[in-house]
Amino acid sequence: MKAEIGGPIDGETERRIRDSFGRQGLMAHLGATLHEVRHGLVSIRMPFRAELSQQHGYFHAGGTSAIADSAGGYAAYTTFPAASSVLTVELKINLLNPAYGEALEARGTVIKAGRTLTVCQIEVFAERDDERVLVALAQQTLICLEGRRDTPAGPR
Amino acid sequence: MKAEIGGPIDGETERRIRDSFGRQGLMAHLGATLHEVRHGLVSIRMPFRAELSQQHGYFHAGGTSAIADSAGGYAAYTTFPAASSVLTVELKINLLNPAYGEALEARGTVIKAGRTLTVCQIEVFAERDDERVLVALAQQTLICLEGRRDTPAGPR
Amino acid sequence: MKAEIGGPIDGETERRIRDSFGRQGLMAHLGATLHEVRHGLVSIRMPFRAELSQQHGYFHAGGTSAIADSAGGYAAYTTFPAASSVLTVELKINLLNPAYGEALEARGTVIKAGRTLTVCQIEVFAERDDERVLVALAQQTLICLEGRRDTPAGPR
Amino acid sequence: MKAEIGGPIDGETERRIRDSFGRQGLMAHLGATLHEVRHGLVSIRMPFRAELSQQHGYFHAGGTSAIADSAGGYAAYTTFPAASSVLTVELKINLLNPAYGEALEARGTVIKAGRTLTVCQIEVFAERDDERVLVALAQQTLICLEGRRDTPAGPR
Repeated sequence: MKAEIGGPIDGETERRIRDSFGRQGLMAHLGATLHEVRHGLVSIRMPFRAELSQQHGYFHAGGTSAIADSAGGYAAYTTFPAASSVLTVELKINLLNPAYGEALEARGTVIKAGRTLTVCQIEVFAERDDERVLVALAQQTLICLEGRRDTPAGPR
Repeated sequence: MKAEIGGPIDGETERRIRDSFGRQGLMAHLGATLHEVRHGLVSIRMPFRAELSQQHGYFHAGGTSAIADSAGGYAAYTTFPAASSVLTVELKINLLNPAYGEALEARGTVIKAGRTLTVCQIEVFAERDDERVLVALAQQTLICLEGRRDTPAGPR
Repeated sequence: MKAEIGGPIDGETERRIRDSFGRQGLMAHLGATLHEVRHGLVSIRMPFRAELSQQHGYFHAGGTSAIADSAGGYAAYTTFPAASSVLTVELKINLLNPAYGEALEARGTVIKAGRTLTVCQIEVFAERDDERVLVALAQQTLICLEGRRDTPAGPR
Repeated sequence: MKAEIGGPIDGETERRIRDSFGRQGLMAHLGATLHEVRHGLVSIRMPFRAELSQQHGYFHAGGTSAIADSAGGYAAYTTFPAASSVLTVELKINLLNPAYGEALEARGTVIKAGRTLTVCQIEVFAERDDERVLVALAQQTLICLEGRRDTPAGPR
């Protein structure tokens, strides 16, 4: 039976996602946190701080891309077998509106789950005052590496 | 006369680029520095540290994208009029090889300089031991906002 | 007042879209026809024939891209001023499933309508038997050329 | 030993590429022909005719994308094992300059050849009078389907 995108996931899968996210040094460094973790759908929040800015004081597109990449990656990873690893093949992002506000939220959704390749769409919203504005839209291709551990390899 | 891509730029333009880069809080936060600044060609270096990693201990695609975005953006900006601002319209990046090594270098080059839109290509190399490996390739569209200051606006 | 995406358009705008589509020699050559024309939403249908195939006998990605490009372009064009022209800045398409069936339908939707740049998303469905399968997903950036006529220029 | 991109290929591989190209109904329908076939580098030419136009009388971005897609796809295919098939995963194209002239030439080059995924870059030039103008730049991801025949399947 095929699980529904956005539906609940078991505790084991959720732990796998949260552990992997916890190993992403960049997410902690950017102050980004996992928000929702559902089947084929993951969202990540990142509150504003000056360390995330570009030259006009908005969120830098690089930070926006970083949480978009992780949101899509983990959305895909929820649909992968336990003994596997996820890598981004490519990401394309359109910056639609100036990204300013209290926080950004990237919401990744699996559009096509394949055995080898999975395609996600990611929306990034800026939360400002009582508004929620779509500031970026992305498409991403992920690859499932079966049997590859999701942890650092030993010394190369 | 049309300046050559990769050719020298005047001190005024270089100062404009370096000042703008200096206002990007994210670049400092990632430990990224401006390397080359030439006409239509800018490179940025980012030494590895754990705060930049993804779950396997490689550079996170988000950090790779961030320096790719700034390298392309500033390559474009060298070709813009002084009283203007640059914004990324969209960025597409392919991750070609695992991004590990002592440092990454993103090298942005203007492919087409237009009055409104400019298209750049960005190569990202990983420096490891004595090798230099292409780890990412990106295409990016930038917009020139004439008359818009390249500094934070006042209170909104 | 802002018109709603997917809402009705006036006869004048619809005529402008249909006339422009009629001038696209490629659409006729591919056997593609305008289906829906609404505010910020245009769909195009293309029945299968051997002239549209790739090596396995499916629809060639190039034909899929062609109707995706026109569907997004005309979706954007419905939101532009009458005395203007539309050009594609860039298009990114993911081929999700083998594109076979009686016909393809590309459905372009405006995600962000700007004065200069507009961003569309395009879904392409294959109609087979009684199914409708999403075979491609695209993101596209369009530029509005104000004052530029939407017809061939005179001799260059 | 690794063959060099742009180097010669054996007659068997060239035949495989030319046969596969010959099965692409769309290429014939667009009047496109294989030009160069080298290791990891394939070019395709398409002379102008009214059936390839968009509304202003230029080459339609869909036709430009179609030959870009095939040029990249066959460049990748030259590097694949004989008993395999190639499919496009995704394509991203920037339209840089109005595409008019006597003919277009798309030139696909392998940037990264992998066992499963291969990434190509494609340049499209317009030939006009004695000029050759870069009109489009694309990045493309291809997948190698080992053991899958490069011909139409039987009745589904």
